[in-house]
Amino acid sequence: MEPHIVDELSAFKLAFRRHAAGVAAVTGLTPAGIPVGFTATSLASLAAVPPLATFNMSRISTAWPAVEGTSHVLIHLLGARNRALADRMSGPHDQRFVGEHWAVGPLGLPLLNDVPAWMLGRIVERVPVGDAAVVVVQIEDGGLGDDDEALLYHERAYMSPGDVILD
Amino acid sequence: MEPHIVDELSAFKLAFRRHAAGVAAVTGLTPAGIPVGFTATSLASLAAVPPLATFNMSRISTAWPAVEGTSHVLIHLLGARNRALADRMSGPHDQRFVGEHWAVGPLGLPLLNDVPAWMLGRIVERVPVGDAAVVVVQIEDGGLGDDDEALLYHERAYMSPGDVILD
Repeated sequence: MEPHIVDELSAFKLAFRRHAAGVAAVTGLTPAGIPVGFTATSLASLAAVPPLATFNMSRISTAWPAVEGTSHVLIHLLGARNRALADRMSGPHDQRFVGEHWAVGPLGLPLLNDVPAWMLGRIVERVPVGDAAVVVVQIEDGGLGDDDEALLYHERAYMSPGDVILD
Repeated sequence: MEPHIVDELSAFKLAFRRHAAGVAAVTGLTPAGIPVGFTATSLASLAAVPPLATFNMSRISTAWPAVEGTSHVLIHLLGARNRALADRMSGPHDQRFVGEHWAVGPLGLPLLNDVPAWMLGRIVERVPVGDAAVVVVQIEDGGLGDDDEALLYHERAYMSPGDVILD
């Protein structure tokens, strides 16, 4: 083990560069009814009974008003075929819902097309921490599309899972 | 898109089966000084300035007293070579710190050997939700070991990342 990294920001950045994450896309509606959304690498399960999940976001993002001011979001689990969708949902805000890649889904929320799985989440906690927030949702509904390899984000690139590591 | 899955627990389980996650191991000391720890697939970054991260855990786990009753934990980012360590830290509680796979690290916390990266996290929020909790930590220190492929958990198996998916 090398010596400690003295600068805590470097420790954080270098460690997370070695972490891999599945990619999700969260969508919602602002209180005015405008579709908003973003690509998230922070989706995690919290508990199974009742089914709870968490994701993290910036409170200075365009999607925050939807999380702060409404009751539900849709969470989409992206597959390898959704690479362009991941880019779209992390690209220019005014282009994220321009096109045919979504439809009106449960509760009028923007449902992204052709994803392996999606879940309807009722927001049960919003935990502000600085400019960010942890959001806890209870899953109330969901659906499956065609199966696919999972989409990963790792070392600043999109990847698919590789070999199983046996015991 | 297939019809909705009516049962929300099935929606949750089937969706997360299609999600992939990086694998971390969290360690701490109970207020009595006993080393505890667990394998976590919920580690996520929350913000970079200051560097904040989150993980989720059960409050009925043996590691909860360390999170509830002390100020810091160590978070280890696991690589493909740490497959056995991931099993160890999710196996029988009384065997997790029996052996030579750890040493006394910063603040006396259990530091797992030969991991690609670790971070010292000061606990800044504990958010109980039912029997579970979201834990927010601020990263105060860290170190790097030899680089490795990331360790993933997906479809109930450990894997390494595969091919990069280009535009």
